Parts: sequence; C-alpha cells; structure tokens
Amino acid sequence: MLTHTLEEILHPQSIAVVGASSNPGASGYNFTYHLLEYGFKGKIYPVNPRSPEILGMKAYPSIKEIPGTVDYVISAVPASAVLNMLDDCSQKGVKCIHLFTGRFGETGRPELAELEQSILKQARKSGIRLIGPNCLGLYHPREGISFGYGFPSEPGSVGLAAQSGGGALNFVYLGSLRGIRFSKVITYGNAIDLNECDYLDYFSQDPETKIILMYIEGLRDSKRFFKSLKQAASTKPIIILKGGRGESGMRAAASHTAALAGSTKIWETMTTQAGAISARDFDEMADLAVSFYFLPPVHGPRVGVVGGGGGPSVLSADICEEAGLDVIPLPTEIREELKRQGNSIWDWIGNPTDSSISGETAFSAGDMLQMMDRNQNFDILIGIMGEGTPAGKEAILARRRGDVKSYVKVKKKISKPLLVMVEEKSLGTKDYNNWRWRVMSEARAKLIASGIPTYPTMARTASTARKLVEYYQRRK
Amino acid sequence: MLTHTLEEILHPQSIAVVGASSNPGASGYNFTYHLLEYGFKGKIYPVNPRSPEILGMKAYPSIKEIPGTVDYVISAVPASAVLNMLDDCSQKGVKCIHLFTGRFGETGRPELAELEQSILKQARKSGIRLIGPNCLGLYHPREGISFGYGFPSEPGSVGLAAQSGGGALNFVYLGSLRGIRFSKVITYGNAIDLNECDYLDYFSQDPETKIILMYIEGLRDSKRFFKSLKQAASTKPIIILKGGRGESGMRAAASHTAALAGSTKIWETMTTQAGAISARDFDEMADLAVSFYFLPPVHGPRVGVVGGGGGPSVLSADICEEAGLDVIPLPTEIREELKRQGNSIWDWIGNPTDSSISGETAFSAGDMLQMMDRNQNFDILIGIMGEGTPAGKEAILARRRGDVKSYVKVKKKISKPLLVMVEEKSLGTKDYNNWRWRVMSEARAKLIASGIPTYPTMARTASTARKLVEYYQRRK
Repeated sequence: MLTHTLEEILHPQSIAVVGASSNPGASGYNFTYHLLEYGFKGKIYPVNPRSPEILGMKAYPSIKEIPGTVDYVISAVPASAVLNMLDDCSQKGVKCIHLFTGRFGETGRPELAELEQSILKQARKSGIRLIGPNCLGLYHPREGISFGYGFPSEPGSVGLAAQSGGGALNFVYLGSLRGIRFSKVITYGNAIDLNECDYLDYFSQDPETKIILMYIEGLRDSKRFFKSLKQAASTKPIIILKGGRGESGMRAAASHTAALAGSTKIWETMTTQAGAISARDFDEMADLAVSFYFLPPVHGPRVGVVGGGGGPSVLSADICEEAGLDVIPLPTEIREELKRQGNSIWDWIGNPTDSSISGETAFSAGDMLQMMDRNQNFDILIGIMGEGTPAGKEAILARRRGDVKSYVKVKKKISKPLLVMVEEKSLGTKDYNNWRWRVMSEARAKLIASGIPTYPTMARTASTARKLVEYYQRRK
Repeated sequence: MLTHTLEEILHPQSIAVVGASSNPGASGYNFTYHLLEYGFKGKIYPVNPRSPEILGMKAYPSIKEIPGTVDYVISAVPASAVLNMLDDCSQKGVKCIHLFTGRFGETGRPELAELEQSILKQARKSGIRLIGPNCLGLYHPREGISFGYGFPSEPGSVGLAAQSGGGALNFVYLGSLRGIRFSKVITYGNAIDLNECDYLDYFSQDPETKIILMYIEGLRDSKRFFKSLKQAASTKPIIILKGGRGESGMRAAASHTAALAGSTKIWETMTTQAGAISARDFDEMADLAVSFYFLPPVHGPRVGVVGGGGGPSVLSADICEEAGLDVIPLPTEIREELKRQGNSIWDWIGNPTDSSISGETAFSAGDMLQMMDRNQNFDILIGIMGEGTPAGKEAILARRRGDVKSYVKVKKKISKPLLVMVEEKSLGTKDYNNWRWRVMSEARAKLIASGIPTYPTMARTASTARKLVEYYQRRK
C-alpha cells in the first residue's frame, strides 16, 4: 500500500462541491455532474446557500451543515470567498481542497497575490492540503472523478500531472483517441501548496502508473524536482513538456499560472541528464506516449519501411534519415529469400519497400515486415498506410482492409517495435461520408485496437522513433 | 495565347486509351472512365483488340483503325507493346503519348533501360512528345482529364508537376480538402522526353496558374532547370519538394523513377538562390500552398496570437518564437484602448491572448484580432481553435460557432494575413458522431469556405508563417 500523502487525497470517501450549481453553463454544475456521470462511489455534497437541491441531490448552505465527514472539497467559488470557506473546511476536518477558483497571483495584481498567500498560510495552519489554485483538479477514472465531459471511463497506466487544465483536457481527448488510457490526471495550476514534486513522487511510487507525463510552466521547488525526476526516471519513462521556454512564452506563463520560468538551457540539460524525455508540444507528447504505451524497447536506429507508393517511399527514406534513423539497404539474405520464393522483382524491391511495384506478385507488406523482423539488421519497423494509389473504390477498400488484416496478423508474430503511419486529412463533416476517408479512420481504429500505435505523418513517425532510440540508448 | 509546346498537348481534341479495359480493377479502365466521369468534351477512343465495346463506347482493335484524328494517347499497355504502338501513333499523326506504362529504367535492368531509350528515339523520329513513362499523366479539370477518382471537377490556380503519380494523387486530395483548386496537375515519372524544365516553363507562362508546385526526384537537365526556375520564381511563388535528399532516399528514387539525384547541398543553395521555397514533405507543401492561395503578402515576423486557453497560449508563444517569429508584448495602445472600453482585465490580457481569462467580459477573439490588425506593430495574425475548455456540449457548440462567425466577420474587415489553427484529432469512424469533433470539422470547412487557411497544429502554423516571412523578405 502506497504511503504517499496523495494516496489518501486521491481516494476520498466523500466530496463536497462548494459553489455547486444547477446551471449547466457553470463550472459548479460541471464538477458535480461529473461525479454522477463517472459514478463516484462515495458521498457527494453539493454546497450552495441559495439552492436546496442540485442535480437531484440535497444541497447544503455551507460545508459546516453537511452531516457526515468531508474528505475532499472542490472549490468553485470566487477568490474572495475562499478564506471563509477554509474556516468551514478546517472545522469539518477536510483533508484536501481542489481550488478551481482562480484570479490570484496570475493576474499580476499584488492584492490578489497576497490573498493567495493568506490562503496558503491558513490552509497550512489547518493541516489542509491544496491542489491549485487556478486548475481543473482531478480525472481519476477508477474513482469516478473527472473535470471533463466524455473522457474514457476505463482506467489505464498513463499518469499526467499538468499545470494547465485546458492543456490536460485536450490531452486526455488526444491521447484516448490514439488508444491510451489514464491512471490519474492531476492538473495543478499555481501550485501554492502541493507542487510538481509531490505529483511526480506520487506517480513514481504509484504501481498503477507505468508512464509519467508532465506539463510544467514553472517549478516551485527546482532542487527537489530534479532529485525526484532522476529517481522517477530510473524506474519509468517520463515525458516532460515545458511551457514558457522562450521570452514570450515565459511572459504568457506568468500571466497563466504565475510561473517563474527559469533558463531553458539549464532546464534542457537537467531533464536530459535526469533521464527524462522532452516533448515540444502536446502533439509530440501524444506521439511519445502512445509509443511507450504500445511498443517494446527499441534497440537501435536501423529501420525497415514498408507499404508506401513510389514517391511516398522516397520521401519516407529522406524523412527517416533526416530524423537520425538508419534506412539500411535491403539485406542480401532477404533478397535471396525473395528469389528462392520465385518473386519476379526480387532484384528491384528495396528498403523502403515500394508497395506500388509489387502489383502482380503475391508478395505483401506483411510478408516483408516478417522477413525484416527475422533479419538481425533491423531494429524498428515502420508501416505506411496512405492514399497513393489511383485505383477505384472496390480495389482501394480491399487493399486497405487487407493491409489492416496483414498488420494485425503480423503484429502477433513479430517481436520488433512496429509503428504505422496512417495518413490524416483535414476533413469537413461532409467528408465523413466519403468512403476514402472512412476506410482510413476504420483502419486507424482497428490498428489501435490491436495494440499498434499509429501516427498522422511520416515526419512525426520518424521523429518519434528517433526519440525512442535515444531514450533506450541513454538507459544502457 | 500561349505558344508553349504543352499548350496544344494539354488541350487535345481527341484522346485514345490504348489498353482500355472493361474491368474496373484495371488502369485501362480507370483512365477511360475518368474521361467520361470528368466530362472530357473531345472524342474518346478506347483501344483494345479483344473488346468491341468498352464503357458503352465503341472500342478499336488498334490506333490505326480509329476513323478520326487522334491528338493524345494514354498508353496502359505493357512495356513490350510500346514500340509497336508508337508505329501506329506515328502513322496516325498523334502529338503526344502519356506512357502510364512503366517497368523501364527504374527496375535497374539494362535491357529495360535500353527499351526505354529505343522508345524515346522512335518518338523523336516521329515528332511525338512523351509524358512519362511510368506516371499517371494529367489531371486537367477544365478539360475533363483526370488520373484519380473523386478529384474536384472545378479548376483553380495551383499548378503541380510531380515525378510521382502516387504523391500527386495524394496531394490533390490533401490540397483540395484544405481548399485549393488546381489549374493542371502533370505527373511525369521517368521524364525521358518532356521533363521538369518543360513543365516548369509551361506553368511559368500559363496565366491560369498563379502558384507552382513541383515534386522532383532527379533533374534531367539541371542547367536549364535552374535558369527556368529563376525566371519562373520572379513571377510566381514556386514551392519545390525534393525527393531523394539523403543516401537512402536517392537509392529509393533510382528504383522509383530511375532518377539520379545530385548533391542535396547544391540543390538547396540553387533553389533558394533562384527564389523558390523548399518543402520537406507533401504536408508542408500543402501548408505552404494554402497560405499562398489564401493570404496577402506577409510583411514581417511580428505575430499576434489569439484564441487559445492558458497552456495552449503559452506553448503557442514558445512554438512561434522557436520557429523564428516575434511574439511581441501587447502594445500599450491596445491596452489603453481596452481600458477605455472598460475591460476589467485590461492590465492582464497579453499576446498571446489567453481566451480562458476573458470569461465574464464582453471581449472576444474577433475584437482583439481587429485591434491587432489596426495596430502597426503586428505583421501576422494567428487564431487558435482548440479543445482547451472544460464546458459542456451547449456551451462549447455556442463558443465554437461564435468563434467561426467572428473569424469570418473579421476576415472581411482586416488587411493582415490571418492563419487559423484548427486542432485535428486522430479519429476512428465511430468518433465521427461525436459532436465535439463534428463541430471542429464544421469550423474547418466554414473557415476554408470563407477564404481563411487552416492548419492542423501550432507547430505547422508557426513554421509556415516563418517560411512566408522569409519568402517575402527575400523578394524585397
């Protein structure tokens, strides 16, 4: 059993939403609604002095009037009401308050920064821990706590601590559409009490969490952080996205979470030395997260690329090479094997394997992937599923569906990491009905369901593969 | 009237498809079908010795038996049949043959490379020009000629010459979904006769073509090419994607179009000096193409960013800055204007403008964009449309639709270039029904229909904006 402070906080028996509301436009509505929607098993206490009932539940005029104990409070009241609420929470023995409430230090106004400090002081005096302020709090699917609509209800093994609620919200959608599921997502805004170090330490110890993701604008305790990071990175992959890397980003971070960003150079050096992986944006974080979620370790940079047409194959070679992968020529043993099989183009096929030339031969992308998997010269396999064929509807549908079947079948037989690029197009809703894009979306979903990570462009596939190579090389 | 050789070739009065077929799986079927599908106005002659009728049209056993004149021939017969067909074409006075037929020099087999040369020699003797071999030929919407299913039937102002048929095919889908339309797309494979220089010169002279795109694996005439390029680039934006930049890419290019790629360094220097713009892949080519298609010139790197939530705003600043844009602090005049308007957060709002803090104020992204447009300190405007808000369905639908209306309205009033990032997610078909993604796809289509280019990620938006800045700076 985990003894970290957050373990108890993250498993409350009862939650009060202060500032709960019956108005679907209000945040106090959303937080209450989510507890019902995601099936929180403990007691739920809406608190609002002007409503006797909220969402079909009895509401209380204040925390003090709640009959039972209250472990966890979600605060959706204005900043000016927080000190009074803290008094009530103190009397009630509340363990933790998630302050959704914002407009403190981040506004740049001295009186509001002072108020923030008074809140911290009083919370400390009362032994109440604070998540936030100025954040969306928790998404904890196993407990039925959430800050967003339509998040997956089933839990997974990815833990995310994020200083930005909006960023985390978007990432939960982004990541879950690409197949990952979360153990806990904690958004923590201004981090005046519990900070990045607490969340990192917790995820590091949490057996449910296999991959740690962090979005950080500024560190509250940089000394402790790099120590924690080193410790955590020795046991689990940690992907860190730093917001506020440049001058304008730091300015924006200050007015977002009152973060004081440090030197970017020092940051980069420290995270790499600690063994963590840097992401430049949430898209790259998703690319990396799905890779660690689905793939076995990557042992080197030698890549086999299969499935694209002529031009796309040429470009995939360039892009992989420019990303720092090694697109080796097709090994002689594979060529000999093709010849023995009576393949009429055994001397023409290469790496990347151009799918448009195999026309009349019985040879498929799946066959080549298996040969590359058996051949000791390859470390990574990349599949390309794109639009580069001039055939009609029936032929394309048959080919795409055949490709998917082949990847899924091959996946079970091979031991090397397989990444598949499934091209994405910028669709309008009317394009949804086009069989051409439907079959690609169908392919994407089927590959993901079979545990094959997919990527939207070759540039992102290659760059992700390279980061995996570097990560596993550094760990040796 | 254009006097370039290609002008007559591209406007044939009659087309024969040699190797035409009634079998929907065959290329000889596709090419014939497209002439009907896209409404080619001239005469169509299917040629096949074994079928009296193809797709409801009388078919002829050979070119010679066709009663009228034949201007243009699409060859879908095997390589071994081409020399005989050339004889017939010569007798018939054919002006140009598009050799879809492949398996020549690109196979690496000497006897097939020799055959290719014999074909060229005989074509020259007969005064017949060749497009290809080993290519998909033409998409010319105004004439009703196409090599792909489901291409737009309406023409536009983008000309594309591509050595890869599959690459061009994909790009037509990619580009048209993002709002651009094409004057002519010419794919040209091994380019044994008409080559990159001819196509470039033609597009340079063609009044229908305002933006030129090229995908090139190897140059057939590099001296002439750079002269043509310089000439063309002085009149129109030219975006060039080079395939075969690295060792493995060059290997792949040789087996795709028998291209001999030269030094990448020399290539880069020459294209930049000539005034062309380099793209690294078809995705970047699309980003650049839509920008030139929709935007006015960009006069400098000072960018105003509007519409993202807290974290996404911070990251947008970092990403813009790292791309080489200048995310200037919000100018004092705008702050003063906000104060005069009675905006309660006039001292907190910045650039990027965090949309999540404007909550109760009447202030919108559109208002800020107009102020930035009027303010002389900004050169470029970027809008962010993302998922970073924890609200429920009705609120989000109202906000997204409001944003779109606001962008469309503002677009008519402002004079500065406006790029909008509309986030894309990797969807499976079942996600199509989710209102959350539908409203984004709806937004994308509406913005594009109003002439606002959209981009799928902030990284790509920023990198495109930077390339525009550099292009217009070089032209000064």
